[in-house]
Amino acid sequence: MTHVCLADLERAVRDVLPGEIWDFLAGGSGTEASLAANRSALDRVFVVPRMLRDLAGSTTEADLLGRPAAVPVVVAPVAYQRMFHPEGELAAARAAGEAGVPYVIPTLSSVALEEVAAVGGRSWFQLYWLKDEKRSLELVRRAEDAGCEAIVFTVDVPWMGRRLRDMRNGFALPESVTAANFDAGTAAHRRAEGVSAVADHTAREFAPATWESVAAVREHTDLPVVLKGILAVEDARRAVEVGADGIVVSNHGGRQLDGAVPGVEVLAEIADAVSGGCEILLDGGIRCGGDVLKAVALGASGVLVGRPVMWGLASAGQDGARQVLDLLAAELRDAMGLAGCDSVSAARGLATKVLRYG
Amino acid sequence: MTHVCLADLERAVRDVLPGEIWDFLAGGSGTEASLAANRSALDRVFVVPRMLRDLAGSTTEADLLGRPAAVPVVVAPVAYQRMFHPEGELAAARAAGEAGVPYVIPTLSSVALEEVAAVGGRSWFQLYWLKDEKRSLELVRRAEDAGCEAIVFTVDVPWMGRRLRDMRNGFALPESVTAANFDAGTAAHRRAEGVSAVADHTAREFAPATWESVAAVREHTDLPVVLKGILAVEDARRAVEVGADGIVVSNHGGRQLDGAVPGVEVLAEIADAVSGGCEILLDGGIRCGGDVLKAVALGASGVLVGRPVMWGLASAGQDGARQVLDLLAAELRDAMGLAGCDSVSAARGLATKVLRYG
Amino acid sequence: MTHVCLADLERAVRDVLPGEIWDFLAGGSGTEASLAANRSALDRVFVVPRMLRDLAGSTTEADLLGRPAAVPVVVAPVAYQRMFHPEGELAAARAAGEAGVPYVIPTLSSVALEEVAAVGGRSWFQLYWLKDEKRSLELVRRAEDAGCEAIVFTVDVPWMGRRLRDMRNGFALPESVTAANFDAGTAAHRRAEGVSAVADHTAREFAPATWESVAAVREHTDLPVVLKGILAVEDARRAVEVGADGIVVSNHGGRQLDGAVPGVEVLAEIADAVSGGCEILLDGGIRCGGDVLKAVALGASGVLVGRPVMWGLASAGQDGARQVLDLLAAELRDAMGLAGCDSVSAARGLATKVLRYG
Amino acid sequence: MTHVCLADLERAVRDVLPGEIWDFLAGGSGTEASLAANRSALDRVFVVPRMLRDLAGSTTEADLLGRPAAVPVVVAPVAYQRMFHPEGELAAARAAGEAGVPYVIPTLSSVALEEVAAVGGRSWFQLYWLKDEKRSLELVRRAEDAGCEAIVFTVDVPWMGRRLRDMRNGFALPESVTAANFDAGTAAHRRAEGVSAVADHTAREFAPATWESVAAVREHTDLPVVLKGILAVEDARRAVEVGADGIVVSNHGGRQLDGAVPGVEVLAEIADAVSGGCEILLDGGIRCGGDVLKAVALGASGVLVGRPVMWGLASAGQDGARQVLDLLAAELRDAMGLAGCDSVSAARGLATKVLRYG
Ligand SMILES: Cc1cc2nc3c(=O)[nH]c(=O)nc-3n(C[C@H](O)[C@H](O)[C@H](O)COP(=O)(O)O)c2cc1C
Ligand SMILES: Cc1cc2nc3c(=O)[nH]c(=O)nc-3n(C[C@H](O)[C@H](O)[C@H](O)COP(=O)(O)O)c2cc1C
Ligand SMILES: Cc1cc2nc3c(=O)[nH]c(=O)nc-3n(C[C@H](O)[C@H](O)[C@H](O)COP(=O)(O)O)c2cc1C
Ligand SMILES: Cc1cc2nc3c(=O)[nH]c(=O)nc-3n(C[C@H](O)[C@H](O)[C@H](O)COP(=O)(O)O)c2cc1C
Repeated sequence: MTHVCLADLERAVRDVLPGEIWDFLAGGSGTEASLAANRSALDRVFVVPRMLRDLAGSTTEADLLGRPAAVPVVVAPVAYQRMFHPEGELAAARAAGEAGVPYVIPTLSSVALEEVAAVGGRSWFQLYWLKDEKRSLELVRRAEDAGCEAIVFTVDVPWMGRRLRDMRNGFALPESVTAANFDAGTAAHRRAEGVSAVADHTAREFAPATWESVAAVREHTDLPVVLKGILAVEDARRAVEVGADGIVVSNHGGRQLDGAVPGVEVLAEIADAVSGGCEILLDGGIRCGGDVLKAVALGASGVLVGRPVMWGLASAGQDGARQVLDLLAAELRDAMGLAGCDSVSAARGLATKVLRYG
Repeated sequence: MTHVCLADLERAVRDVLPGEIWDFLAGGSGTEASLAANRSALDRVFVVPRMLRDLAGSTTEADLLGRPAAVPVVVAPVAYQRMFHPEGELAAARAAGEAGVPYVIPTLSSVALEEVAAVGGRSWFQLYWLKDEKRSLELVRRAEDAGCEAIVFTVDVPWMGRRLRDMRNGFALPESVTAANFDAGTAAHRRAEGVSAVADHTAREFAPATWESVAAVREHTDLPVVLKGILAVEDARRAVEVGADGIVVSNHGGRQLDGAVPGVEVLAEIADAVSGGCEILLDGGIRCGGDVLKAVALGASGVLVGRPVMWGLASAGQDGARQVLDLLAAELRDAMGLAGCDSVSAARGLATKVLRYG
Repeated sequence: MTHVCLADLERAVRDVLPGEIWDFLAGGSGTEASLAANRSALDRVFVVPRMLRDLAGSTTEADLLGRPAAVPVVVAPVAYQRMFHPEGELAAARAAGEAGVPYVIPTLSSVALEEVAAVGGRSWFQLYWLKDEKRSLELVRRAEDAGCEAIVFTVDVPWMGRRLRDMRNGFALPESVTAANFDAGTAAHRRAEGVSAVADHTAREFAPATWESVAAVREHTDLPVVLKGILAVEDARRAVEVGADGIVVSNHGGRQLDGAVPGVEVLAEIADAVSGGCEILLDGGIRCGGDVLKAVALGASGVLVGRPVMWGLASAGQDGARQVLDLLAAELRDAMGLAGCDSVSAARGLATKVLRYG
Repeated sequence: MTHVCLADLERAVRDVLPGEIWDFLAGGSGTEASLAANRSALDRVFVVPRMLRDLAGSTTEADLLGRPAAVPVVVAPVAYQRMFHPEGELAAARAAGEAGVPYVIPTLSSVALEEVAAVGGRSWFQLYWLKDEKRSLELVRRAEDAGCEAIVFTVDVPWMGRRLRDMRNGFALPESVTAANFDAGTAAHRRAEGVSAVADHTAREFAPATWESVAAVREHTDLPVVLKGILAVEDARRAVEVGADGIVVSNHGGRQLDGAVPGVEVLAEIADAVSGGCEILLDGGIRCGGDVLKAVALGASGVLVGRPVMWGLASAGQDGARQVLDLLAAELRDAMGLAGCDSVSAARGLATKVLRYG
């Protein structure tokens, strides 16, 4: 059957992925209030479309960190993608390359970052702060050497949030999947009742990053630095002050602080406060082109998409991931035109209304 | 069984129409968020009725584009009405005539506009912008010659929105139904998996209209011109500036931009901004006389009704369509009186409260 | 089984009353949006209780139209109470007398008003405006002569609203039940498909009242006059101007204009505007003592209760109706004390918060 | 099975406790609107977490009434804990001691307060006002002598609210459980249809407290006095004026006035008004560490937790109660860190957003 929207892929994949891997992918932390709120927040935003404007020469092209992307979409960093498909990050990165959008290689990539970067296309590197600062900066250097165009420094993970599904499942990585960017030890594979081995592993390897860690990264590289996981206006302002080139307004897909406000709810305020000081990306719950349009109308330069690309990957590897990105692009083209926007920057001017229904 | 409200007809028809034709009629685009919101928006509006005012000589009569209608209701343009009943637009137009309300003949009428106009009553012509401007203006001229009283220029369809139901159904027109106003080719009848043939067909035939297209129509005819599909205050103002005689505040029944704000939510603001500069009609989700009262209280001169008239048509042809219009008229008469209004203009002064329940 | 709240009685009665009589009692007009909103509006009001105030000498006694009632509760006028129990209005009025609260005898009483008034206790007379003004004023005179203490002039019924349940049921009065206050003819007993005989009957007998009708009543009697069915602030103000002694802020239990705002939503505003110029009662959806407390906190002197008293009547005649009023009184006593109020006027000072949950 | 959150324990216990004891524990008064609202109010609060702040030396330690607690959590007074486990208050108090948090011994303790206080750890004594003031003050003196550190004077119980579940169950105490702090008579054990024997018993024993009762307690003891059950800003201000050391903003877990506003909804306002004049605790619906974080962010020094500790007690006595407190502590540690807070006072500075979803 043809998939006419991303939810079709979600359903298909939920039925075939092993339960605990589905749970790892789909779940959030705690009561999953923030996970649910990410969607609710987008559902409440309505757009006021414009009519009769010239659509000749329309383009969805976007400038992301100074370079063009086919659409204002980035593949979000997602750990251990070989859990979803044997080719993991390689397949997903190739799909992103074909689709003309940046791919963020995770620190917890299950394929070495150099191999992923080698598939071509634009790649960015997502950094988790390791217990040893030197090793952290080494990762940055390796990413730079491998041709990554930016460092996406994830700042909302001093440790992993309490993902109850994983704890209930006593979840551990399958034997065949490992953190390929460094010598990861065996902790992520050790099953124990009531414990997420993945959380346990990151607690051993990672340390809470601070503004000093950001300064260290900033000094260490000339690549653009993007702070991923900002929700407070003050933190956004400080990001600009310390020389960040961008931020991702995000609650980490509802996987860190349960009860954290959805990015959508603070986006406009942050865009206002930052007013061009750095690039603003949004993630969390983006499920169709119309959601991308909403994010842009509220002030984002573009969005990151996490789970949906994994649905594509799980369903048909590179082709599946590509199908997801193509659907998003087609939907965005449609939505922009129907809203009277011939470019992403035209979409930034659209009015929105927050309505509460249901 | 007697039908005591329009929802009774809806249920009856849903059970007998072929599934994919029902879906074509009932469906919206994307997640159908705007479709659902059209109803939710009306459900949240409550009216503050007035008491003890003189109701002797009460009338539901309305002035629409300078001429009287029995009620402030217009039959909305709906494509391909022969899908719902063999007599299609002829039956529906006759019903409108009997009920004393204008009927909008669609560009995509399945009966030639001249034949439909010939049934008598008031008819308006709905214009889609064809790829060739000359052919578009020819349609306008034919409508004028056939006695149509107004041109309803639909401005929210640069192309058809993504109607997922139709895509899932691989929907195409039945052989016996065609676009009768022009040589339409075979595209609308070509079934393909995952594709709406109707959307495909309109993509081939229609071009995005612009404000220049409006100017061309405005110059080409002396008939009143109504722009259908306006949601932004700025577009409403511009409509007045370019000499439009009316606008339809509408998100096209939730069938174009999924996530577009419901007309009801912007109506009062637009009525305020336009303040009499042109006539303001509303459509989307009108399902009873009380909804008409709400629309008028919020600033509309009247409403368009789409799907319900088709339920009537599908259930019993001309009689069925007539029954729908009669029910609406009876309900409106009731609602106006219970709200203390002896005329449509009295209803325009009613206060409303937007409440969020459920 | 003991009934610990009114909802227990409702459930019990729903299971035993003939379906169409239940529907007549329970139903509202149209989509029953106003009926549902009456409850939702009350559910959203939360009270800020006070603590540690002296409760010695607490009383629920209220002053209603210048005379004391045991609680600020009035039995609302409900037509044709012999449908619910053979003793009908007699049983209900006796229960009200025992409970120390006024009973409103309806124009459409199924026992002659003189007989009902004769049971003792406080009775008020509810007036519908008959086609013939003289006959209307005759009713007023008869009520006065029978010892009624007030005229409750219902102003929101120029005709009966569209009660779809009754229309679907083709509802007519049982043979044994008639409008006992006047020669009512047979219309209310004539069954026809899709028609409510009761609505049909009132359409024949009643005429829309106007402010002039109010003036006529005002001149005709020295009894206090209460206008029942006011929702607009302007109408409340005018009621004071024309010498009304009270108003009932009410949407007629959701039975007249479907989409009419619930009284609770406009009560505070009206209380403010009227500021003591006349007595303000509320009705619609009062189902427990806590609801009475909310109404008083929002500015009412008291409430009318309709359906619940009929549940009691239907379940056990006079004793059942009495049980309802006793439960309400016990609940109110409890709620007042827990909110720190030793009197109804103390309750009028309570703060409220409107919260939206669920 | 491991319990990964408190709701796991709730489910487990609901399945094994006798129905009427479960109902006594879980239920609220009336329609349970305030009970439900306690949760809804917390669910609507979202936190704006801060990033990249130094978490070295993080602590959840809190100052409660001038002394340290391991977390800003207090075990709420809950009557008759031997109903949930044979060791009742002894087991629960020991668990609190192990967890390093204060335990509030109820007036209606099923173990004598001296025995409970003797288990060690911090204990506070909860006071209900007995009919005889002298006996009330005697309780205070006994608590002081037994080493209790504070008097928690419950001010929202002039009598017990109408708990319909208990009334339906004709609930009475099991023979083996009694009010151990005084000679309680037999009323609480006398079953009668439609009556809660526990409510009946308290009506016989307790009297409505007033501000004078508070003054009497204030004079009678040098221990800190905390008023439990404050919801109005004026009452909070007066508490400070009469020398209270703290207040518990609370609607008594939805068990007293049904329709009383949830504490969460008035907390910020009260914290503002009191501005440090006394300590502010919150209770009602706290079910995870994230809820504690929300309470602190809104202005509380800490929270009381009622039912969840009883779930633990019922499931595994002292160990179970301890497990509840440990889970809360672990969750709070997690939430504070993910929100960038190294201390409870840092958490007090967090911004919140009230969002309405669902
Ligand atoms: C299974 C999974 C693994 C993730 N791994 C990482 C990661 O390693 N690093 C990171 O910064 N974010 C990670 N994220 C968060 C995503 O980058 C992104 O913020 C989030 O998924 C966006 O929400 P969406 O999935 O609703 O699009 C992960 C998310 C998921 C679902
Ligand atoms: C099946 C269907 C076909 C439609 N075709 C057209 C059309 O050809 N031209 C047009 O301007 N609007 C068209 N519309 C939109 C209607 O004119 C109208 O805006 C909408 O149906 C109003 O909402 P309602 O159906 O909820 O009353 C169509 C709507 C439906 C449901
Ligand atoms: C079955 C029924 C009959 C009624 N008949 C009358 C009537 O004859 N006159 C009148 O003024 N109101 C009438 N009412 C309205 C009530 O007086 C009152 O406004 C309404 O029932 C209050 O709402 P409640 O039923 O939710 O308490 C009737 C209501 C019901 C339910
Ligand atoms: C079964 C039960 C018994 C209670 N007994 C008392 C009591 O004796 N004294 C008192 O002040 N509060 C009592 N409370 C109220 C609690 O102290 C506390 O305010 C409430 O339970 C907090 O809400 P939570 O249960 O949602 O945490 C009781 C609560 C419950 C559930």
